[in-house]
Amino acid sequence: MIPDSPGGGRAAFVVVDWGTSSFRGWLMSAAGEVLAESRGSEGMLHCAAGPGFAPVLSDHLTRLGALQGVPVLICGMAGARQGWVEAPYIKTPTRLDALHEGAIRVEASGDIRILPGIAQAEAGRPDVMRGEETQLLGVTESDFTGLVCIPGTHSKWIKIEGGRVVEFSTYMTGELFSVIAQHSILAHAVETGAAPGDSPAFRDGLGAATAAPTGLTASLFRLRAAQLLGFEQRAHGSARLSGLLIGTELADAVWRHGSPRSLRLIGAGTLGRLYEAALTAQGLDVTTVDAEQASRLGLAKAAARIWGAT
Amino acid sequence: MIPDSPGGGRAAFVVVDWGTSSFRGWLMSAAGEVLAESRGSEGMLHCAAGPGFAPVLSDHLTRLGALQGVPVLICGMAGARQGWVEAPYIKTPTRLDALHEGAIRVEASGDIRILPGIAQAEAGRPDVMRGEETQLLGVTESDFTGLVCIPGTHSKWIKIEGGRVVEFSTYMTGELFSVIAQHSILAHAVETGAAPGDSPAFRDGLGAATAAPTGLTASLFRLRAAQLLGFEQRAHGSARLSGLLIGTELADAVWRHGSPRSLRLIGAGTLGRLYEAALTAQGLDVTTVDAEQASRLGLAKAAARIWGAT
Repeated sequence: MIPDSPGGGRAAFVVVDWGTSSFRGWLMSAAGEVLAESRGSEGMLHCAAGPGFAPVLSDHLTRLGALQGVPVLICGMAGARQGWVEAPYIKTPTRLDALHEGAIRVEASGDIRILPGIAQAEAGRPDVMRGEETQLLGVTESDFTGLVCIPGTHSKWIKIEGGRVVEFSTYMTGELFSVIAQHSILAHAVETGAAPGDSPAFRDGLGAATAAPTGLTASLFRLRAAQLLGFEQRAHGSARLSGLLIGTELADAVWRHGSPRSLRLIGAGTLGRLYEAALTAQGLDVTTVDAEQASRLGLAKAAARIWGAT
Repeated sequence: MIPDSPGGGRAAFVVVDWGTSSFRGWLMSAAGEVLAESRGSEGMLHCAAGPGFAPVLSDHLTRLGALQGVPVLICGMAGARQGWVEAPYIKTPTRLDALHEGAIRVEASGDIRILPGIAQAEAGRPDVMRGEETQLLGVTESDFTGLVCIPGTHSKWIKIEGGRVVEFSTYMTGELFSVIAQHSILAHAVETGAAPGDSPAFRDGLGAATAAPTGLTASLFRLRAAQLLGFEQRAHGSARLSGLLIGTELADAVWRHGSPRSLRLIGAGTLGRLYEAALTAQGLDVTTVDAEQASRLGLAKAAARIWGAT
């Protein structure tokens, strides 16, 4: 039996955001309504290491109550070289509404496709994304012009002109935060635990970084020196470190891609609010969209282009 | 018996560079000749964790053939809060030739003193050094004006005017190299092992960083993306990472402290040669002094001021 939405929509396809360490699937109506949802921790790393991808998908389809043979569209790391089937990167500049044309069909019973990532295949500024392109499709109109920021382990800034991704940059902000807080001398100066929220120490770090954005590697040592000399408490180290890294990212991204007419932020939770605060503090006018919703919207848009409205 | 130098100098004092993880001591004549040398791995961490400082020094004095009661002057982490006896920081601006006035006497039989570190105790740019101040004394004339660069785990850039340390900055360059190469996603892109030397990949990283010094955290991800997209080999990752970090340090230091009339580099080994190449590539005219020699010269200068020429 096919579950129906409260509005009575009939199940048209399943969409899946299959990341490095998570699986999120939705049964959708052709009109884009969510009929059912299934989540798990069977990300790309888990599947590649053991059970494979097909059985994991099959389990989730059962949980979603999807009929045999329902079309499935996947985005994210399942399409990486080390994933299920490689969906080769399409190259910048590229229209977001042509993303579905690069989808790769999985050799399996039924119609299962994986969306491609996007590569900036230029020797001077090589860069890649996989998963974020689908979020971009989800949050932009077909003629969108502006900048999109997607914070995270590897934050992305994407410049879009008339619905085309023209260039983008990835910042190792989130990963550097973890690595520095855990493995460097700053482990003595930063309390680990909950991610820091907005605070005076965060704003101070942000201000220091945007005022002197070439000085990150000196500011990191100063964070420690400030505590040794009694200017700052250890309790504020984490927020200051976060401010320094996010401020450095922000200053470079705006310098690199220009101060935008329109800025969309794809974020969630504490980190999303932190970026919102940081961008607003820089005088930027930002519209925030939830990250998971962005993925689902993008997948649904691409699926509707492949299989049409029924 | 007091060992005599080939020139016949009589032992006047012992000087010790006592760092975090090493001990280097020299028996010196009043004229500054080295009469004997003793080295070990009994650094501050080792001594603080177990045997204490006095017995380790005593052993080395015996190995040096020093007479009972010979005066000893120490610099480095033995004077840190977690060291033998804390020698409180003296504050910038400060004359290097007044360093010996801040020496702290250890409560022990004989005359044993520890030189202080230097602190930049300003809320906006807090910074500290301990050990490097003695190297600075060693490599500068009493009226020196210029910039000194001391590369390492925590690289220092020091602005000196008329023999006074007026400001300095510490860059976490060496430590970030290790932490990123070992604990981040770049572990897949960087071969660990021997420190990288000068090479085209090092120069490329240097050039990228000095051309866009706000972009370090993006350049780090690009290092990985370049390999994914086939623009670069893993074998060159280490040199590129080194170039990116050193280039970022260099660009910020020159922006912060001004392009110097006179630039001294206190370095040794592969890292010293790498900085020499980097500074020269930036059109800077650099004079290199060996790091160990700099420490010994500084200690000897300060010792001569304390105990006079005999």
